[in-house]
Formats: sequence, structure tokens, C-alpha cells
Amino acid sequence: MPQHVVVIGAVALGPKAACRLKRLDPDSQVTMIDQDDLISYGGCGIPYFISGDVGDPGQLQTTSFHMLRDKRFFRDAKDIEVKTKCRALAIDRKNKQVLVQSLDTFEKDAIPYDKLVIATGSRPKRLEIPGIDLDGVFTVSNMHAAIAIKKKISSGKVGKVLIIGGGFTGLEMAEAFTDMWGIETTVVEITNQILPGIVGENMAKMAQHHMEENQVTFHLSERVVQLEGDNGVTRAITDKRTIETDLVIVAIGTEPNSELARKAGLDISSRGAIVVNKKLQTSDPEIYAGGDVVEVTNLITGKPGYYPLGSMANRQGRIIGTNLAGGNAEFPGAVGSFVVKLFDISVAATGLSVDVARKENYDAISAMIAQFDRAHFFPEKDMMYLELVVERGTERVLGVQGFGNKGDGVVGRINAVAAILSYRPTVAEISNLELAYSPPFSSAMDILNALGNTAENTLAQRSRVVDADEFETLWEQRENDEVVFLDCRGWGNAATFVERYPDRWKNLPQDELRDRVDEIPHDKRVILICNTGVRSYEAQVMLNQQGIRNTSNLQGGMVWVKKRGIDI
Amino acid sequence: MPQHVVVIGAVALGPKAACRLKRLDPDSQVTMIDQDDLISYGGCGIPYFISGDVGDPGQLQTTSFHMLRDKRFFRDAKDIEVKTKCRALAIDRKNKQVLVQSLDTFEKDAIPYDKLVIATGSRPKRLEIPGIDLDGVFTVSNMHAAIAIKKKISSGKVGKVLIIGGGFTGLEMAEAFTDMWGIETTVVEITNQILPGIVGENMAKMAQHHMEENQVTFHLSERVVQLEGDNGVTRAITDKRTIETDLVIVAIGTEPNSELARKAGLDISSRGAIVVNKKLQTSDPEIYAGGDVVEVTNLITGKPGYYPLGSMANRQGRIIGTNLAGGNAEFPGAVGSFVVKLFDISVAATGLSVDVARKENYDAISAMIAQFDRAHFFPEKDMMYLELVVERGTERVLGVQGFGNKGDGVVGRINAVAAILSYRPTVAEISNLELAYSPPFSSAMDILNALGNTAENTLAQRSRVVDADEFETLWEQRENDEVVFLDCRGWGNAATFVERYPDRWKNLPQDELRDRVDEIPHDKRVILICNTGVRSYEAQVMLNQQGIRNTSNLQGGMVWVKKRGIDI
Repeated sequence: MPQHVVVIGAVALGPKAACRLKRLDPDSQVTMIDQDDLISYGGCGIPYFISGDVGDPGQLQTTSFHMLRDKRFFRDAKDIEVKTKCRALAIDRKNKQVLVQSLDTFEKDAIPYDKLVIATGSRPKRLEIPGIDLDGVFTVSNMHAAIAIKKKISSGKVGKVLIIGGGFTGLEMAEAFTDMWGIETTVVEITNQILPGIVGENMAKMAQHHMEENQVTFHLSERVVQLEGDNGVTRAITDKRTIETDLVIVAIGTEPNSELARKAGLDISSRGAIVVNKKLQTSDPEIYAGGDVVEVTNLITGKPGYYPLGSMANRQGRIIGTNLAGGNAEFPGAVGSFVVKLFDISVAATGLSVDVARKENYDAISAMIAQFDRAHFFPEKDMMYLELVVERGTERVLGVQGFGNKGDGVVGRINAVAAILSYRPTVAEISNLELAYSPPFSSAMDILNALGNTAENTLAQRSRVVDADEFETLWEQRENDEVVFLDCRGWGNAATFVERYPDRWKNLPQDELRDRVDEIPHDKRVILICNTGVRSYEAQVMLNQQGIRNTSNLQGGMVWVKKRGIDI
Repeated sequence: MPQHVVVIGAVALGPKAACRLKRLDPDSQVTMIDQDDLISYGGCGIPYFISGDVGDPGQLQTTSFHMLRDKRFFRDAKDIEVKTKCRALAIDRKNKQVLVQSLDTFEKDAIPYDKLVIATGSRPKRLEIPGIDLDGVFTVSNMHAAIAIKKKISSGKVGKVLIIGGGFTGLEMAEAFTDMWGIETTVVEITNQILPGIVGENMAKMAQHHMEENQVTFHLSERVVQLEGDNGVTRAITDKRTIETDLVIVAIGTEPNSELARKAGLDISSRGAIVVNKKLQTSDPEIYAGGDVVEVTNLITGKPGYYPLGSMANRQGRIIGTNLAGGNAEFPGAVGSFVVKLFDISVAATGLSVDVARKENYDAISAMIAQFDRAHFFPEKDMMYLELVVERGTERVLGVQGFGNKGDGVVGRINAVAAILSYRPTVAEISNLELAYSPPFSSAMDILNALGNTAENTLAQRSRVVDADEFETLWEQRENDEVVFLDCRGWGNAATFVERYPDRWKNLPQDELRDRVDEIPHDKRVILICNTGVRSYEAQVMLNQQGIRNTSNLQGGMVWVKKRGIDI
């Protein structure tokens, strides 16, 4: 008798596991059930469907060769039976069957299984505030919600949108509304930065500034406490203001759909996710689970982590398929890689941000750098911004975050680090990472190598730094007269600042510093400034040698300050 | 007494080592000598100077903040003394001094050193044929040669250029002449493919086809035996034809300038490169060497390798600088990462190509894949082509090569593999590489993960493949009537071929195959074909199940065949 495998959930992991199993073991019988009628779609494409980049919802449900992944497709091309509008009510582990109910006829049935896959995914977290169930309040939960949102904005009656949550879904939605529909969009985020837990505060502010330049409004450290309206939502009350709005998107994160597993007595974590081993088996070895409903090991911290991403679901689905067919594949865990496009820029990250690292009790420092993404003499180039998070002492790399143009340059650098992160690299390995070199693609010393070098100098306390945030605070407090801002660039760059702030901003080009060291005040802290932090580091070394040690180098330099939108 | 360090050579590694040393140990005294007067330039930028992308040779010699890296710069900004037009005649290790001669005054001198750095780089290999010294025959050796070439083409008298050598320098030069100057350019390559030793033959033909579409002419497996002309070169005689030309570029590789080291009794390898340890010390521990003049360990094979690249020189220079200052930095070796832009496309590689792997006695297979570089539903996307080289048995990844648009997508994938290659990853690690995912940057199953999956299926002999080359041969021999070409795509894709070759080209869409299996001839080998190799693999699995096993799946599919320029 060929085995019968039942798969609960037919969006990402479910179909992948089912198809992989059928390729390895074509004789096995596979039944996939889903409570929806739209299945096997690319949910991560929803913001691009809303924006209009993707014209038709069907495009998210077709293969790259334009076949609609519907019931018929799975039957004919994959030999997999799919039951849609079929809800799993319970897993009867003793009798090895799934109790299901048709959402069309409401008839109940029991489907026996030899092995079971739970691919029930996640749902948007619900915001428990008054008015949350008003018309016009949406989550980006599935294709039906996406179609409803697009229908509403297509009606032309949406002039203002409020997005609750500044994570990547919220930001992608903000871009979609603003860029393609010209809708006045406001994002309210409860923490003090956008992309919390993903990038550090400096880079978050950089991304926020870019989105503000693209007409998105942000309110940080602010909480929406109530939604109001008669025929649908018309305003939101926060702890600081009232915001008029025609539509609200709640994007405050997702949580695993683990109720079925919990009721069946499978191990569930404190986060509410299904606990699986490396083979992606639940506490019942006949039952596999993966995707947004499970947690896996964070390979940096060794603790459980939750990564609701379509890419994880696909890779885990293949591993489950292999194991269902008698294979021995393992999913070791994740480092947490991430990328988002925001208008003309991209933000990418892998591993831990500096604040997350510190929360995890690592004695972490971060090094920041700005450098061209290719040879500086190559005509087409853009400034790129990277931050490396390193543990003091061990010099272990914990994470890296990047900001740059919307091409593949930033994500390429992040992916190179992501690839080695589970090998616990030291900062020296970043300095010496062998990236392919040619002037149209990188500098001879690529920004990633330079980032490693910078981190190493900071760890060795050769470079004593301030970041753009600290610079901003020092600048705001400049009337205290405790600090001198010393511009180490040529007069061409420094002139504007010196002329505007003659008492605060001094100019001593780095290549003249040796001969003019007497001009530097010995009684004040000196903030050394150049475009990117390279010449100011050279200046710091030189001043050290002259016995002037109360200096700090502005890491990332003035290009970082400017990109942050700091107004001086 | 502060130490005195002498650096011979002031282009890439020399300045890097000197500057790093001075930052770590500002009291040390550094003298850098070079026989040229142009120093510290980005030699890799020469093709872009020739093309006009870089307008002025000075741009290759300036920092990213527009300071010319000349003697004055090194003195004022770096506290390093530079002697230009100063040739090192000999190293007197016993007395620890370098004997030098001024190329201006011809006066000789001896410069004492505590430690010495040999950064003498490489030179273009000389082609020993009659006529090689004619006017108009150039190598891309240094800035002087570059300026001379540009002067000649700017004169408007160059209508035809012959390039000897189809390595990356030759190809970059071919692009420069053709793209920006409209010069009729021919490349003669002695081996049977361009980019020999870097990518496999299939991908090389893809790149060649692209360059041919951009009006570059290629003659492979051909040897230039003589250059002729009266007032400068006017034609080249090969073993197959005569080629009229106004200018000849010889780009047949480089060789290390190791004579000084050899005369000084330092260990030199059979390749003629200086032998160094991981600290980049020569056989005399007081003498360091790096860059184009040394060989380092190939981290795939464990054997010595030669990597004359500006990126290596920069990274090695920093390591030498650290060690000169009493540090303990190491350069473990290289995997051989590479990228080149050729008109609108890029080719990148790391590790071993399949032919090099086999020459090194690995039992290597290669898996090829074509897939979109981002989500297939995202509007802006391009097809990308990757080849993974894997050792049978161990399933160890030996290398990866890629072809795609000229953005950073290909090199990003290659760099992610380059980063882990020295950790000896297996193919499962490529399948599960955690690349950052979002539809504008990748597919949920990124092409790199899919490449790992494909290689794994091939290793497991689940997928029995032919590549585009083998397909071409089978197609050319189609009248032998031994093979059926079975198109598994829909009629829309297959129609043209079926109508043109009704006796040879059959169409059975993959999703109809199960019901129409009787239509497949049992007495012939069946070549299964689709766009990219995905559906044809599904078809192969299904036919296996039906007992039809004499099938081969066209890996990379028809998009690869088409990109190769195979005319069917």
C-alpha cells in the first residue's frame, strides 16, 4: 500500500512539501486541504498587487510559466488531490485521521493519514482596540483582504490611509499607497523606530527620512488607542493626536495558526508556535510542520526564533517533502535574513541588530561605514551604507545591516555575510571576504571588506567613534561649548559649515593637520569629521601621535549625517 | 629608533601596506620606491579609461574624495616618503639594504631597511612571435600603455582592432573598443572557449554569443603566428587566416615580476611567483611580499594558485601592514572569485569551473539552471543562468558560475557562495542558503537555492540531464533518428518547433503527460524539453514511474539554448 499523506494548508509550505514528496515517491497518495478557495499564492507579493505593479491577483497564483496553480493544476501536473474550502477541525492522532468540514456543504468527514503535514501558516496579530472591526480596517492577511483593499482604493474614495505598524509589511504598504495611488499615508509605530528589531536606530532613521521625502508621514513612539467612524472608519485616536483617515491597515506582526496542533497535544512554544526538530517533525514523529506556524533555532543566539517568510516556508517545505519520502534532510535553523524595497532604496539585514544583540546580552559594538558601491572612478555608482554588529572580546560577527539604492548591491553584500554567519565568523573574515572584483561591481577594497576593517579598528580602540545619532545630540548641545567640530576635508567641502558656524565648526584638512596641530584646542573634546569617516580616522591617528587623544571620529561621516536627514 | 620599512612598488599593495603600517605605528619610517612616475592607480580601471567611461587618467589615481595620490599626497596625508623613477636593482639581504638607481640621474644609492615589502606586481606575458615589436602592438600593462592606446584611437585612424586573448582583460578591451568607439574588433583565442579556466564551455558560449550580438568577432582554437606591417602593424597572420588590423592588443595573461626576489635568493615557485607563508612573509622573514608577485593557496584544491587582482593586492597589503606593525594577521588563501561586465551582461564565478575541476581529478558534475532573478510576478526581472560544480560522492561544492544582466544580481549570488566555499559546503547548504527574500530581489525559492536542489537531483540520478552543448550535438544528428525531442510546454511555446520539424519535435504538455503516455515512443531516447528545465524534470519523474527511463532532461531548458545562440 502506498502511503497516504495529508497536508493541511495549501499556500506555500504545503504545496512545496506535497510536490517534492510526489517527485521523490510518485506512488504516494497526497491530499492537500485548505479552508480557502484561493491556494498556492505568493502572499509576499500582496503589496505589489496593491500598488499595481502586479496587475491581476491571478499573477500571484501562477507559475513562472503562466499556469494557474489551482486544484486542476495540482491534479494534472502534480497528481495531488486538493480539497479547497475544507477546514480541518481536529487531528485525531490516535486513529491517525484529520476531521474536516466542508465550508460549502458544512458536511463533516474524516481523512485518514499515514503522515501529516501542518502548514497552517500565520495570521496578522489582532489589535485589541475599540473600533477595530469597523469597515475600512484591514490586515494584509490573504488574497481576499488584498482584493478588498485594492477594490476600495480603486473606487477613488480613499484620500488618506493610516498604517498601524512600521515593520516591513507596513512600510511596503505605505510605499504602495503613496507611490502608485498618491494617497496621503501616515504610519504610526509604537516603538521609537521603524523596522524595529531588524536594523539599528541610525539606519531606521535613514530609511524613515527617505520615506518622508516620498511623502509618507511617520509618528513614532505612538500608540493608536481607538478607531472611530459611522459608516466605516474615518479617524484614529492615538495617545498623542487624532488622525483623519479613510482606510486603516493594521500591520503589527503575525502569529502562528497553531490551535489545531495545540488541541492535538503537540508541543507548542511559549510564543505559540509549533516546536519541531531539525527534521521538521513535531513532537509526534508522524506529523511534520513548517513555515509560519513553527519556530526554529536562531543560529546566532541558539535560542528559538520565529521567521514568517515565504522563503523559509519554501525551503522547509522541500525538506519535509524529502523526509516524507524516507529521506534524511535537515533544517538547521536560521540567521534571520531580510530585505525590503522602499521607493528608490533598499534596506537589508542578517543576524542581529546592535540593539537586539545587547538585549541578548552580547557585549556588542557596531561599526558604520559609507562607501561607493563600485569603484569610485566608475561613472555609475551610488553611496552605500553598512553597519556591522560585533561582539567585543570574541570579535564574533553577530549581524550586518545595509542601506543603498534599490538594485541588488546591498542585498548581495548582506547575503554574503548571511551565508557564513552560522559558521560564527570573526571580524577578520569580513575584512578578508573574497568578493568578486571588477570596477563596475565593487571597489578593490569592497565596502564589505572596508566595513570589517573599520569594525576591527573600533574593537582595537584605534578608532574612537561617534555615530550620526550621537553627533546630532552633540550638535544640538553645541552652545555648551564643550566640543569642537573639526572638519578634516578640503575647504571646498568645509566652507559652508565654517561660514555658517564660525565659532563651532573648524576646518583643518587632514593633509595639513601635521603642520597645523597647534591650532587644535587641547581643552575640548574634538569631533573629527569628513565625508565618510576615512580621513577623520587618519586625522585621529595623527592626533593620537601628537598626544591629542580626546577625539572622536564621526563614523559614516557627513554623507551618513545627510542621508539621516539631520539638519545642520 | 623607529623601524625603517622600504616598500618596492607603489601601485596597489605597496601603498596599502605602507599606509596601514603608518596608521598602526605612526612613528615608523616608510620609504616607498617605484620605477614609474605614475603611482597608486587603479589598473583595473584601464579598460574604462580606454572606453571613455573614465575621462581622465588622473581619475584612476585619485582617492574617492578627489585627492591625487602622488608623492605630495603620500608625504602630507600619510607621512610616507615616495621616490618615483627609482628602480630597485638588487636586494642586499646580508646588509639589509636595497640598491636603487634613479631613472632621471642614473645615480645609484643604497637604502637601508629593517623590513622590506616586495610589491613589484606583474607584467603582461610577452607573445614571442615575429612582428610583436611593431608600432601599434600594445599590452594593457600600465597607465602609460593605456594613455598611448587611447591617444591612438582618439586620432581617428583606428578602424580595426585585433585582440589576442579571450580572457577577461581581452574581453573588457573588446567592449571598450566596440561600444564606445565603434571600432571593428576581433578576438583571437588559442583555446576552444573565451574566459578559459573561469567558466565552463556552455556559459562561455553564452557570453561569446552576447558579444557577437554586439559586433565583436571571435576566432577560437586559433593562434596568431605573425604580425606584419611597414609603418606599424597592419595585419596578423593566424594558423587559419589573415586579419587586417590597425592596432593589436596582446592580453594573454600576466606573469609575476619576481626577478628581484629570485636574485636575492628568496623562494620562487615553478610558476615564477614568490612563495609566501600565511603572514605573507617570504622565505626571509624580514621580507614580505604580496599582490601580483606572489602565489597563495587555492582553498579548494589546497594547491598554490595565482590571482593577479587588485582586490587581492589591497587585502594582502593591509595584512602586510598589520604584520609590519607587529601584528599577527593572516591571509589564508583564495577561492578565486571573478566578475566581468560585457556590454549589457555580467559573468561571475568563484571556485572551480567543471573542466578545471576535472583536470584537478575531481569526479565533478555540473548542474545548470535558468530562473528569473526576482519573483516571477514582479514586473522588472531578467533571466539569470547559474552553473554549480559539485563533486560526486562527497557532494562537496567546488565552484559556481553565473551569467545575467549587468546589475549586481549575478555577482551577489556568486559572492554568497564565495563566502562559504572555504568551509567546504555540501550541495545541501546551497539548497538551504538563507538569502534575504522579498519579491523585488529574489524568488521565494531563490535561483541559488534552486540550483542546489537541481544539483542534488542530478547527483541522486533522479534527474538525468543533457546540457545545451549536448542538445546541440543531438539536434545536429537528428537525422540519425535515434532521438525524440519531446516538448513538455504548452502548445503556445511548442507550436513553432512542431510545425517546423513535425517528424522530430513532439509536444506533450507536462500536465497532460500522465493521460497520454502511450504517445511516447519506447524504442528511442527521449529528450525532454521545457523553458527552464523544471517541467521537463517533472515529466522525467512521471515517465520513470511509467517505466520509460531512456529520457534526458535538457537542463537550463530552451532559454539557455536560445541564450547560447543555438539556431534551431
